Amino acid sequence: MTHEAGIPLGLKFKLLSDTPQDSAAQVVGDVVVGDHRDLDTLRAFARGCDVITFDHEHVPIEHLRALEADGIPVRPGPDALVHAQDKGVMRERLDAIGAPCPRHRIVADPADAAAFAEEVGGFPVILKTVRGGYDGKGVWFVRSQAEAEAPFKAGVPVLAEEKVDFVRELAANIVRSPHGQAVAYPVVESRQVDGVCDTVIAPAPGLGAELSGQAQELALRIARELGVVGHLAVELFETTDGRILVNELAMRPHNSGHWTQDGAVTSQFANHVRAVLDLPLGDPRPRAPWTVMCNVLGGDYPDMYQGYLHCMARDPQLKIHMYGKDVKPGRKVGHVNTFGDDLDDVLERARHAADYLRGTITE
Amino acid sequence: MTHEAGIPLGLKFKLLSDTPQDSAAQVVGDVVVGDHRDLDTLRAFARGCDVITFDHEHVPIEHLRALEADGIPVRPGPDALVHAQDKGVMRERLDAIGAPCPRHRIVADPADAAAFAEEVGGFPVILKTVRGGYDGKGVWFVRSQAEAEAPFKAGVPVLAEEKVDFVRELAANIVRSPHGQAVAYPVVESRQVDGVCDTVIAPAPGLGAELSGQAQELALRIARELGVVGHLAVELFETTDGRILVNELAMRPHNSGHWTQDGAVTSQFANHVRAVLDLPLGDPRPRAPWTVMCNVLGGDYPDMYQGYLHCMARDPQLKIHMYGKDVKPGRKVGHVNTFGDDLDDVLERARHAADYLRGTITE
Repeated sequence: MTHEAGIPLGLKFKLLSDTPQDSAAQVVGDVVVGDHRDLDTLRAFARGCDVITFDHEHVPIEHLRALEADGIPVRPGPDALVHAQDKGVMRERLDAIGAPCPRHRIVADPADAAAFAEEVGGFPVILKTVRGGYDGKGVWFVRSQAEAEAPFKAGVPVLAEEKVDFVRELAANIVRSPHGQAVAYPVVESRQVDGVCDTVIAPAPGLGAELSGQAQELALRIARELGVVGHLAVELFETTDGRILVNELAMRPHNSGHWTQDGAVTSQFANHVRAVLDLPLGDPRPRAPWTVMCNVLGGDYPDMYQGYLHCMARDPQLKIHMYGKDVKPGRKVGHVNTFGDDLDDVLERARHAADYLRGTITE
Repeated sequence: MTHEAGIPLGLKFKLLSDTPQDSAAQVVGDVVVGDHRDLDTLRAFARGCDVITFDHEHVPIEHLRALEADGIPVRPGPDALVHAQDKGVMRERLDAIGAPCPRHRIVADPADAAAFAEEVGGFPVILKTVRGGYDGKGVWFVRSQAEAEAPFKAGVPVLAEEKVDFVRELAANIVRSPHGQAVAYPVVESRQVDGVCDTVIAPAPGLGAELSGQAQELALRIARELGVVGHLAVELFETTDGRILVNELAMRPHNSGHWTQDGAVTSQFANHVRAVLDLPLGDPRPRAPWTVMCNVLGGDYPDMYQGYLHCMARDPQLKIHMYGKDVKPGRKVGHVNTFGDDLDDVLERARHAADYLRGTITE
């Protein structure tokens, strides 16, 4: 999707990919297959690149520092990216800049987790390994000291967080360039199912101007304080008592911003590459009153072709984005975007297409 | 641009390109460099392709018939494409189906051209080689028998056409699929400078519903009668006496449809590949009251980077599409799209960006 956004800008990408089957490797011209955890591979890859950016956050920070020392611009840079890699570092830094977070601290063992639970009003609490988690992986909802054993098995520090009473989840997506220009997309509502993003509604329905402005300003401040370059997604809780708290950070085009491909004047992918290249940023404003994104998850049936035909025929306005991945149950294999004036209609069309493609419904 | 549109559809392209520097070859993963006029090259290339389509019309018809005989679907097929390759065949067929054309006939030599001029009310007349012309090449505006010598030098049949008194040029863009579904984009106004498309305004300002409907129906009828699959651009004259006459046909995504990338729900490129694959077509309706496309031509200065920065900074809503071509004076190296509610503003912004990128203006 970043390549797609780079084509009109006249950009040429070189891709380091784990396998030749990765989504990006199927469409980018210049692909190197290799391990992003290996410094020699990274160094050989980086030679001749004007700038390096990412579609995930898992390249080791020390390797990125080595590339920077070699003179290769890395955007976002390691000093920023570490906050998206390590939840412990992230929480510490957010506390230091006064960004509102759930109560939290690093816990040493299950007994310490129980002590933390005591401090925040009792179980349940959330335990997270500080590194390596995504889409609900590396996150435990813990009701007792006995249940707090599992997170410690990975040998990675464990962060405990209070269970927040929230109305819904929001995301504030912003893009910041090296010279400090920044744009803020409308704050969206993000609905999760089993810890995986399911639906994003842009803008978040009924969100007041005050809370919306707070969320955008918070994301812009985090980006500035952490020195983020490129796209920053700040995942938020909207609490039952009307506050916003930071849940997670992502420093790359993010699932909560996929709606921008068809719903904003400039997509998150286009603005990410514009930022990475220090080009002036594009207008982040929406093109329709409502845009909805639903993720397409794999179902039991590996061939989506009939569903694909049906959805296109049923809704000629539907925007389908497939990733070229093999279909496996529960795997994100694409997403759909819909837009229009009537939220119920826009939601129904996206929901229907995602469910139909997955095989959950027929008609 | 077709590759860009194919990415969200999960499509993988294989490209036959004249050189590794061609625009498409810079961004498509699987590129074969070879001569599209050589049958062996075409046959080797076509092996394993599900379907073949084009971004120009210059593959010899007999070679396409050979590929079809080999069992490779070619869309649009040679029986349709011949009408876009040979203006003599096109005019004959349009006459046969009663499509309104300028008066015309094949002329044998300059004296015959003079006789034709006599038949249509005198010089000037237009002479065209029936094959090989585009962007004003292969077209002569002829004021006398002496001026009629040049077109005959290529050794290709010459078509004479009356000089039409027209108010402006229009284009009707439609897309048709193998099972006969078709969509019609709004009819646009196309402004030419020195025979090269300069500005496209969607929809054509002030065009009445009757003439607009006539143009769309005409394009749909031509597509059906000629068996076109994919995108068909029908370039039209709007005459001073309120008629429309067919000027040219193009059977591929066309410059007069570039506005659809940012101005329509489904772009011409997306609908072309959907048609070629016999997928249901996408909504062709506009997303804004006005969309304007201006071509970016190369100027005297080969480095457009500063202009590029300036235009992005001046107008964050501007949609720039660069082709990755070396800049040469007068060469089409990209285009810009603008959209909005106010035509004067939308036109000014596109015009300004194209002129600034070319270096015709500074500020």
